[in-house]
Amino acid sequence: MFEQTDPNQIQLNSEGQLKHYLTTEGLSRELLTEILDTADSFVDMSAQQVKKVPLLRGKTVVNLFFEASTRTLSTFELAAKRLSADVLNLNISTSSTSKGETLKDTLMTLEAMHSDMFVVRHSDSGAAHFIAQHVTPDVAVINAGDGRHAHPTQAMLDMLTIRRHKGDFAPLVVAIVGDILHSRVARSQIHALRTLGAAEVRVIAPQTLLPKHIEALGVRVFTDMNEGLKDVDVVMMLRLQKERMTSALLPSESEFFKLYGLSEEKLALAKPDAVVMHPGPINRGVEIESVVADGPRSLILDQVTNGIAVRMAVMSMSMSGQTTEKQARLGNGE
Amino acid sequence: MFEQTDPNQIQLNSEGQLKHYLTTEGLSRELLTEILDTADSFVDMSAQQVKKVPLLRGKTVVNLFFEASTRTLSTFELAAKRLSADVLNLNISTSSTSKGETLKDTLMTLEAMHSDMFVVRHSDSGAAHFIAQHVTPDVAVINAGDGRHAHPTQAMLDMLTIRRHKGDFAPLVVAIVGDILHSRVARSQIHALRTLGAAEVRVIAPQTLLPKHIEALGVRVFTDMNEGLKDVDVVMMLRLQKERMTSALLPSESEFFKLYGLSEEKLALAKPDAVVMHPGPINRGVEIESVVADGPRSLILDQVTNGIAVRMAVMSMSMSGQTTEKQARLGNGE
Amino acid sequence: MFEQTDPNQIQLNSEGQLKHYLTTEGLSRELLTEILDTADSFVDMSAQQVKKVPLLRGKTVVNLFFEASTRTLSTFELAAKRLSADVLNLNISTSSTSKGETLKDTLMTLEAMHSDMFVVRHSDSGAAHFIAQHVTPDVAVINAGDGRHAHPTQAMLDMLTIRRHKGDFAPLVVAIVGDILHSRVARSQIHALRTLGAAEVRVIAPQTLLPKHIEALGVRVFTDMNEGLKDVDVVMMLRLQKERMTSALLPSESEFFKLYGLSEEKLALAKPDAVVMHPGPINRGVEIESVVADGPRSLILDQVTNGIAVRMAVMSMSMSGQTTEKQARLGNGE
Repeated sequence: MFEQTDPNQIQLNSEGQLKHYLTTEGLSRELLTEILDTADSFVDMSAQQVKKVPLLRGKTVVNLFFEASTRTLSTFELAAKRLSADVLNLNISTSSTSKGETLKDTLMTLEAMHSDMFVVRHSDSGAAHFIAQHVTPDVAVINAGDGRHAHPTQAMLDMLTIRRHKGDFAPLVVAIVGDILHSRVARSQIHALRTLGAAEVRVIAPQTLLPKHIEALGVRVFTDMNEGLKDVDVVMMLRLQKERMTSALLPSESEFFKLYGLSEEKLALAKPDAVVMHPGPINRGVEIESVVADGPRSLILDQVTNGIAVRMAVMSMSMSGQTTEKQARLGNGE
Repeated sequence: MFEQTDPNQIQLNSEGQLKHYLTTEGLSRELLTEILDTADSFVDMSAQQVKKVPLLRGKTVVNLFFEASTRTLSTFELAAKRLSADVLNLNISTSSTSKGETLKDTLMTLEAMHSDMFVVRHSDSGAAHFIAQHVTPDVAVINAGDGRHAHPTQAMLDMLTIRRHKGDFAPLVVAIVGDILHSRVARSQIHALRTLGAAEVRVIAPQTLLPKHIEALGVRVFTDMNEGLKDVDVVMMLRLQKERMTSALLPSESEFFKLYGLSEEKLALAKPDAVVMHPGPINRGVEIESVVADGPRSLILDQVTNGIAVRMAVMSMSMSGQTTEKQARLGNGE
Repeated sequence: MFEQTDPNQIQLNSEGQLKHYLTTEGLSRELLTEILDTADSFVDMSAQQVKKVPLLRGKTVVNLFFEASTRTLSTFELAAKRLSADVLNLNISTSSTSKGETLKDTLMTLEAMHSDMFVVRHSDSGAAHFIAQHVTPDVAVINAGDGRHAHPTQAMLDMLTIRRHKGDFAPLVVAIVGDILHSRVARSQIHALRTLGAAEVRVIAPQTLLPKHIEALGVRVFTDMNEGLKDVDVVMMLRLQKERMTSALLPSESEFFKLYGLSEEKLALAKPDAVVMHPGPINRGVEIESVVADGPRSLILDQVTNGIAVRMAVMSMSMSGQTTEKQARLGNGE
């Protein structure tokens, strides 16, 4: 629905710093590492008695959700509040459109209210890019998930979780398992893992749930999970987006679990110290067995904790990148 | 539905300061000017890095919306948060009434929770007056729109926008165009413009959308837009309240636009430096052409920005007026 | 639905301090008195210009409402904000469950977000206990009403209201009137009154609205209201939970009022300085006559004010009890 331009022409300022956060695609290893380092400091802060910093004090963050997602909204709301921002939650689908206002009018109105940041969730691919391209200077746009395209904070919280448990990406073999075709996470994950230098990225899925030309992203493709899991360090399960699938693509949930669900038996094929991840909420017994999800190798709850930290990181970095650009603009006499 | 008394017996304290903000009717030129001066300082503050002041810190503002209005609610919520208040949003229509609670019981309960301010939106004329008359001392009531009666913060944000662009009201000819009959803004605008000394206020509308005896408010009435726009300094378009009109009053949207919509052609009849305003959200191609709405003479987005500032002004002034009155009361040994 | 264990094994830490607040049952007189003393100080604070304290600054309070209750939610939201906490309101019924997430997964996810406190409202008895038993250490659970079981902040705001007006519980005869069977308040009230040493607690209800074996709680039972009100110091009316009653239990509202509604006439049977209470919202003319509800002996609005103070008290005490326990745990090298 939305046209595409090179995202880094949009999401980086003239100093190469983040000023929006739309996608991990094209971001340098240095920048991804800076996000992880910044997020690391917020993980530490969350263990303090007072887990609040004044980095966004006096700033207005608007959560623009064109698609409902209580869990994602909650994490962004908490991240913004812990950065001391004022937060406004707007469910756009049910408000302005009924009065016939266009998206652009809605955005211009919110900008005129001196909003500083839009956190955008939309069912159409490219929506956050579109908004970032049309937004007034000084307003940062954070992509909280758009269509099948990207869910870049999810991808980076996964990277943070891997780094905090494995230390270095270089030696890692990582397998991404499940509905690659309909996942907005898989694409972001692959890009981030490749950029951060993981030794090998594998995707494991039935032929019907694999996008065409997926090999072009630099991954090894497996349709047999037992083969694909051999000697991997990290197993990243995807959520089965039941609501997005037509029944023709899948035989049944139990059949899916048999072939592509993560059981203890299948996990035994991975390295002895392999870790297991899932973006949640999990469908127990469909993508993953409870004994694995709740077991000692599961990092599922670490992912949630790290998710707040990553969101705090990209929010504060983007706001800082906007301020730098503004000062450059003012210095140029604009 | 609600009975009326002189609003200034209600909205001013014994020193003549605002303690509620219900209507612009009857407010002196000095008081309207004080609102504009205070709002001006908040417009400047909004351009700062930290756009937050502690004027309502430790105060509780309750947004009492008996009628949904996402845009108006958002501006009051942001205004209150930027004044550092704690904010509670209540959609009364869907909560207490289902348990059979009366309006008065709801108000008394909220007062007992030590609320400091009610921002009231209601579909019945006079609702905010009624609440201000029955509220406990110390609680300020702000009218966020009641029926066809008044929408006084909208009127004052329009005045602020005019003053910031034209400087002085004295020489101005201002035209208000559109559905005067169903507008809760027009009446407030006319009173404010006349009090602030505008040279001439015109209303332009088809006979069917004009209230009876509108001339009594001191305006010149035009049913021909081309005549009415001649040599005006400010064109204030009204929003077409489609949902409030019976079909009998209007032929069609395209017919309406032809006769009373603002096109470049019609705007050419106004003064060369005339400015264009609209409360938003605009119905493009019905009340106003896109080329005019997005053009260099449009102040539509300035109105949004100034709306936050005006809301911050009346909220902080009313709270201050309540405090003064309370101290006087305590001084009198009450 | 939920199994029960001794609540004080759950709600007290090793020092005997509150770390959750689930029920008044089994809490010592000293602890109930500490809650009342703490709440008293918050009542005083609410009369200040700035009614905010930093006791929960940097803490995250999640209002977990599995059952809608605007009024209770508002009081907890205000209490948390006046303690300077960051607040997240979650209506669980309409969010996670639709994605098939289990209650336990939802809780673990919220814990992983570093929530510090869950305020739980649920239609099933024992839900708050269940959550407190399964929650991670450091997270405090506050019961905001569960099924017919308990509504312990309501009970303690009633105790605070009685103490502020009568001073001492020892000489008091207190009557609880109405639908004892379906009330989640009555049970908590009886326990609190008995523990605080009220001379006599009476329940007054038709046989059909009395739980079996109610005498075992140490109360005197009356089915005739005129007899039951004789010489009482405090009349505590219950709300008629119309939605919970099958028609068979009651003849009609007017019949109920005639027999068990509080009229001036019936109130005359109580002591001359008897006070009247009701948890609100009141059904005027069903449980209570307006002239009594709005009369000089009514403490209904005091109850609302005291409700915020009691919620602030149990929230800050529980958080403090969690901190003490955490320090003990860390001191033990855990």
